[in-house]
Amino acid sequence: MKMSKILTKGKAIFLAYDHGLEHGPTDFNDKNIDPKYIIEIAKKGKFNALIFQKGIVEKYKSEIDKSGIPLIIKLNGKTNLFEGEPLSEQLCSVKEAIKLGAVAVGYTIYIGSKFESRMLEEFSKIEEEAHKKNLPVIAWIYPRGKSVKGKSSGKLMAYAARTGLEIGADIVKLRYNGNVNDLKWAVKSAGKTKVVVAGGLKCNEKELLKKTKEIIKAGASGLAIGRNVWQSKEPIKLTMQLKKIIWNK
Amino acid sequence: MKMSKILTKGKAIFLAYDHGLEHGPTDFNDKNIDPKYIIEIAKKGKFNALIFQKGIVEKYKSEIDKSGIPLIIKLNGKTNLFEGEPLSEQLCSVKEAIKLGAVAVGYTIYIGSKFESRMLEEFSKIEEEAHKKNLPVIAWIYPRGKSVKGKSSGKLMAYAARTGLEIGADIVKLRYNGNVNDLKWAVKSAGKTKVVVAGGLKCNEKELLKKTKEIIKAGASGLAIGRNVWQSKEPIKLTMQLKKIIWNK
Amino acid sequence: MKMSKILTKGKAIFLAYDHGLEHGPTDFNDKNIDPKYIIEIAKKGKFNALIFQKGIVEKYKSEIDKSGIPLIIKLNGKTNLFEGEPLSEQLCSVKEAIKLGAVAVGYTIYIGSKFESRMLEEFSKIEEEAHKKNLPVIAWIYPRGKSVKGKSSGKLMAYAARTGLEIGADIVKLRYNGNVNDLKWAVKSAGKTKVVVAGGLKCNEKELLKKTKEIIKAGASGLAIGRNVWQSKEPIKLTMQLKKIIWNK
Amino acid sequence: MKMSKILTKGKAIFLAYDHGLEHGPTDFNDKNIDPKYIIEIAKKGKFNALIFQKGIVEKYKSEIDKSGIPLIIKLNGKTNLFEGEPLSEQLCSVKEAIKLGAVAVGYTIYIGSKFESRMLEEFSKIEEEAHKKNLPVIAWIYPRGKSVKGKSSGKLMAYAARTGLEIGADIVKLRYNGNVNDLKWAVKSAGKTKVVVAGGLKCNEKELLKKTKEIIKAGASGLAIGRNVWQSKEPIKLTMQLKKIIWNK
Amino acid sequence: MKMSKILTKGKAIFLAYDHGLEHGPTDFNDKNIDPKYIIEIAKKGKFNALIFQKGIVEKYKSEIDKSGIPLIIKLNGKTNLFEGEPLSEQLCSVKEAIKLGAVAVGYTIYIGSKFESRMLEEFSKIEEEAHKKNLPVIAWIYPRGKSVKGKSSGKLMAYAARTGLEIGADIVKLRYNGNVNDLKWAVKSAGKTKVVVAGGLKCNEKELLKKTKEIIKAGASGLAIGRNVWQSKEPIKLTMQLKKIIWNK
Repeated sequence: MKMSKILTKGKAIFLAYDHGLEHGPTDFNDKNIDPKYIIEIAKKGKFNALIFQKGIVEKYKSEIDKSGIPLIIKLNGKTNLFEGEPLSEQLCSVKEAIKLGAVAVGYTIYIGSKFESRMLEEFSKIEEEAHKKNLPVIAWIYPRGKSVKGKSSGKLMAYAARTGLEIGADIVKLRYNGNVNDLKWAVKSAGKTKVVVAGGLKCNEKELLKKTKEIIKAGASGLAIGRNVWQSKEPIKLTMQLKKIIWNK
Repeated sequence: MKMSKILTKGKAIFLAYDHGLEHGPTDFNDKNIDPKYIIEIAKKGKFNALIFQKGIVEKYKSEIDKSGIPLIIKLNGKTNLFEGEPLSEQLCSVKEAIKLGAVAVGYTIYIGSKFESRMLEEFSKIEEEAHKKNLPVIAWIYPRGKSVKGKSSGKLMAYAARTGLEIGADIVKLRYNGNVNDLKWAVKSAGKTKVVVAGGLKCNEKELLKKTKEIIKAGASGLAIGRNVWQSKEPIKLTMQLKKIIWNK
Repeated sequence: MKMSKILTKGKAIFLAYDHGLEHGPTDFNDKNIDPKYIIEIAKKGKFNALIFQKGIVEKYKSEIDKSGIPLIIKLNGKTNLFEGEPLSEQLCSVKEAIKLGAVAVGYTIYIGSKFESRMLEEFSKIEEEAHKKNLPVIAWIYPRGKSVKGKSSGKLMAYAARTGLEIGADIVKLRYNGNVNDLKWAVKSAGKTKVVVAGGLKCNEKELLKKTKEIIKAGASGLAIGRNVWQSKEPIKLTMQLKKIIWNK
Repeated sequence: MKMSKILTKGKAIFLAYDHGLEHGPTDFNDKNIDPKYIIEIAKKGKFNALIFQKGIVEKYKSEIDKSGIPLIIKLNGKTNLFEGEPLSEQLCSVKEAIKLGAVAVGYTIYIGSKFESRMLEEFSKIEEEAHKKNLPVIAWIYPRGKSVKGKSSGKLMAYAARTGLEIGADIVKLRYNGNVNDLKWAVKSAGKTKVVVAGGLKCNEKELLKKTKEIIKAGASGLAIGRNVWQSKEPIKLTMQLKKIIWNK
Repeated sequence: MKMSKILTKGKAIFLAYDHGLEHGPTDFNDKNIDPKYIIEIAKKGKFNALIFQKGIVEKYKSEIDKSGIPLIIKLNGKTNLFEGEPLSEQLCSVKEAIKLGAVAVGYTIYIGSKFESRMLEEFSKIEEEAHKKNLPVIAWIYPRGKSVKGKSSGKLMAYAARTGLEIGADIVKLRYNGNVNDLKWAVKSAGKTKVVVAGGLKCNEKELLKKTKEIIKAGASGLAIGRNVWQSKEPIKLTMQLKKIIWNK
């Protein structure tokens, strides 16, 4: 896999912006509702990559190309409206992603969902095709659904990490449960698959920096961050602080 | 995409007539039950395009061709008889639509439905194929199903608009909830994807004109209108009034 | 479409015999249980076409060929044993039907069923393929399933007719609810798609002739009749009476 | 179809041995658990054909070949463990069956099951492919599932027979309900499709011979027998008695 | 099938390590969480083969290759999070497995599950493809799901074994119920399909050795063992003891 296109010394900070489909525009304000604003942040902050759905890429291709920032396309997605067991299916082919300039692809799997097997199966086909074309594959793995309720967050995080390794993801994206030892175990569970942590809900910047230190200490390879950066009043300043922590500068 | 075939200065008024399948003939009277009557209105009113199901196009192809009005084919559809979670599947291939003379294609997605993922996935394949052939894709996006009940109409409208952008629609067709600020936000959410508003139930003409002014003020690109025009006693007169508003003449 | 092979002056009387699969042999007696008896009636009565399932055609091909009567193959079917929402799937490909000598194909859609979308979608592929090969497509459209209960029979009949037009059927086969004005409206709803009426349960011959007059008066193109003919003691005599009414001789 | 390979003067006695998958080894004893024992019986008893699942054929191919007995491969199957609506799906392709030496193929359809349509559809594809290659198709048709309970066994048996004809089976395998007139009607319902009767549970040999006489009297073409033969202490002697009845020697 | 690559004198001891996906990392400690540790054990203990999911193989290919131990890839898998009827779908194609160096492939079927037929069908396609390429196929067959509860463990074990034979597995992997006579019967039920026994939960080593003696006495071909070996403090010593029993040295 050509991991070098999306990693710097084995680490990364990705700017994620698939919230418009996953959560609706409620995450946005007048500025960050505009993909151009996000592309500007990625460019100025020199992020390792931008993460978009296919539709954003098609409509803002010239802006993305001009930014020079590598592109990761999320291949599946769903709205958060349906309240039953989560299922997210493929909305962009690997071929199409490559045509649109992606240097890596992403896919979400809700382990524990009634539809887990459908997502695992679809992912496996994507992985096979992407790897044939030398494209790294990033798995967003989130334990979700009725069956998961009440189970230990640490065990679930490690299970998500290990699933990433077992199914062939090059990078697994997890939600951090806030316990650094649990994350260490999760990173170990992932073996040679790299772990990046999802930024999650916007939080206090101090808290975010503290969390990032823990993440790096636990052995993770970086962040796939969205709201905390593009909802920030000073996204570039914050990005620089995060990068310092990630690369121990 | 060859958007120029269905837009005039970036705006449009489409004559929609897929009600026979979606609602049954209860929307019709002795005149407008006949597709030829609709084609006549489109021709006299110089609509940007006619919207039909494949079956109508096959049977009335010579009339459509003679009218000179561009054709949009709705690729999926369902009756309103089944009372469970809505699912509308593909009834016409992109290839067939092109063969029948379509210059753009449409597809309905019920976000929030139990079957949302099936429609999103099918749409994504249609979008890829249509875009490869330079054909614009219009997504009818309607929040629908049990899970959607009680949710804010403004948020849902913006979510529908944003979904259109994220999945690669060139135009997204929404139902207007009557709040101009909500629609502004929805238009913004759609980014470079254009928004057209569905006409909805026949209403008082004054009200329709007022609504149309709001729609244009909110930044939408026009209307996909059906019942309000072809149920009108003076459809051409009304059309001219609507066009004045849309193009600020 | 080569409609001329199954129509006479735009009208038709088809001899339907798919009851063995749809209802089981309970509709049959010692005579009419034999497909050869049916083929004989069709030949003597000079029906416009015979309607069979693939299996009957394969086993009685020489008899059918000798009769000289055109053949319509029903492409889907089901037993009446399962008591849940109706689903009837494709049991014969268009290619196979052509190979077996069919000059038109038929397919049943239960609108209002939980599985409506699956049948609509399958029909649409059949229609595309058949039309490519110039073969007329006949849609049996019956509102059915839990959701349909209690709805107006007149509205449902018109909805079925209109669905036939919208999805590209050349002929739509309906059940007549007994109200001539309702049928007129249904025929109008079908536009350029022709309407033929299903014979239904065996009834008094007087009643059948009266019903047939109404059907023709309402603008329908004829009958697809089964039990009333082949359960009759004098099927040819009855056929001649029906033909007189259909062609106003 | 090359029926001659599995029929003698239009009649047949098949040795069925798919019980290992359908019922588990509870039907077996130390002798008949071994497929070689079954092959020996078929050889000594000069059965018209052996009926196996693909797996048995692969592992005992040299023994089957040496026996010289024609081979029928059952293409679908299931265990009897799951207690919901029955579904049996294809486990061996027609191509594979031919490669393994089959001269006919079999498939079970549970009419009345919630999954009836899936099995009917799969059967229809198998039938088309097998017939293209001149291979006879045998349909095991069993009314089964919640909806079937309480319905008349005679009517169900005739319905199964007729379904075989309508869907294109060359031979339909039924369970005999013990009423000779019902079976006569079922045989008549099957038209040119031949009827063979399943042996069913091991019973008293006298009773079996009596039943076989009735079956032949009713016009059926023979037996597809398993347990009654290979659970017998003197399988060859019994086979000879059955053959005498079947061929009226 | 090239069984010689994974058997020694018709017997085998496989080192299984698919627990990361099937159970999560809870089975692991700081040592055995690392696939390299497992590969070392396999090498030192001269196991007949290593059993991994595709992802592990991709990431640790050079270590596996260096070890010289033959590779079996498990083609399907699932987490243990979802609490409904078990379904495990294909996550690696046969083609991909071969490309990654596998000399045999494995697949799990939960007989008795609501989804049994889906797994049986998927297995049958894998079996056909693998056998075409001369690759042995190992079926993990476990009775599982609501319908199975309360049924006799001995009968279920024999049913699993027989299912392996009927569907064409070269080796069937079972859980041993602890009754040597039951296992004898299961081995007999499997006919020419070889039986290997799953190691199961870590137990006392004495108990394990005793169990292994019974397994061999019952006629099984060996073990597919995981936790009992790689959770052991002296895995190589234990392996040597097990091998002595298996090969009666």
